Amino acid sequence: MTLRADRALREADVILGYQVYVDLVRALYPDKEFRTTPMTQEAERCRMALDEAREGKTAALICSGDSGIYGMAALVCELRGEADGPEIELIPGLTAACSGAALLGAPLTHDFAVISLSDRLTPWETIERRLAAAAVADYVIVLYNPASRGRPDHLRRACEVLLRQLPRDRLCGIAQNVARAGERSEILTLYELRDAPADMFCTVFIGNSTTKLVGGRLVTPRGYHV
Amino acid sequence: MTLRADRALREADVILGYQVYVDLVRALYPDKEFRTTPMTQEAERCRMALDEAREGKTAALICSGDSGIYGMAALVCELRGEADGPEIELIPGLTAACSGAALLGAPLTHDFAVISLSDRLTPWETIERRLAAAAVADYVIVLYNPASRGRPDHLRRACEVLLRQLPRDRLCGIAQNVARAGERSEILTLYELRDAPADMFCTVFIGNSTTKLVGGRLVTPRGYHV
Repeated sequence: MTLRADRALREADVILGYQVYVDLVRALYPDKEFRTTPMTQEAERCRMALDEAREGKTAALICSGDSGIYGMAALVCELRGEADGPEIELIPGLTAACSGAALLGAPLTHDFAVISLSDRLTPWETIERRLAAAAVADYVIVLYNPASRGRPDHLRRACEVLLRQLPRDRLCGIAQNVARAGERSEILTLYELRDAPADMFCTVFIGNSTTKLVGGRLVTPRGYHV
Repeated sequence: MTLRADRALREADVILGYQVYVDLVRALYPDKEFRTTPMTQEAERCRMALDEAREGKTAALICSGDSGIYGMAALVCELRGEADGPEIELIPGLTAACSGAALLGAPLTHDFAVISLSDRLTPWETIERRLAAAAVADYVIVLYNPASRGRPDHLRRACEVLLRQLPRDRLCGIAQNVARAGERSEILTLYELRDAPADMFCTVFIGNSTTKLVGGRLVTPRGYHV
């Protein structure tokens, strides 16, 4: 968490969010009011925050990672629309691409593409097209939402798209539950990744053609002569 | 800055970095020893940090943004190589993609590609290929190092590559000096971006086909029905 996010939460009257994420901060801000909604109730969650703010409260709507990366920032802006108020302050956070990369080493020291494998709001064809384009152009690739109970085989399907372009021994990594209980990371090949178990608390990294193992860490060189 | 980075700096004996970035934190940690190197002395900077650590000190090597995104994390790992020590702890930070996006609105709520326009360590042909691939696959695109004194026209050249695929009125944004003196943001079209002034303290955002203006902010919808 950033110093700025901590300050915003301390200054808030009410903290809102998905119940799993609210439970992660509840003990840190014991004097606050909390409101939660279950998964898939994203629009309702944002409307609740806007309603609290319209009543004159300072409402903090929290997300995991960065609220601007597959988070609620865009939706809360859309739901307010062109109305004069309430005022919205967008506070950036540490997204899983950054925190997961640091757990694995330094795989993102060169150009990278970030793709969500959830097809709840995006056609799978679009996801496949972006995977293929990133592989052909030798990007490091970061996959969010690699699997969930409703789509257990998305990571396997994504690896099959990538294996059309990339070698089986391409270095990859999985970061799971970063900075939370059960934190775990694993370095493996793209071929092994195809059958690796993953859940919605995993972020997956596929190296580019220069990514290597250095001292047990996954490292994409920037290109300095060393 | 994150709570974790702040704690690491408070626990350090010596803080090292590029002199511009060290000057940004010097007043916050007045009791520390500081060591700086000028720009382009990246390897020397990392070697200094490793040497300090080998002498038994806790050395904090700082970067702007996230040390794992075009930063020193990979280089310091490479320079230590397979040696047993010193121990390296990689601490993620807020990269300009995240902090600049929040300043402009929420442009990164869908898949995005991050590309550096610096050709000091990457052939320009690779940069062009990645720009074209990201445009064809409808990624939001984030450009780091859009220009510097030595390469004043790289942003214009990148826009010309993108304009082969994307419409002139594609929404774009520039975030400059994020969270520092002189912070500034601007929303403009891709055609206007082509001739916009930029420097190495700018991060540039090119929207995807769905990016829109909402309440004066640059927003890429996730796809929720609102």
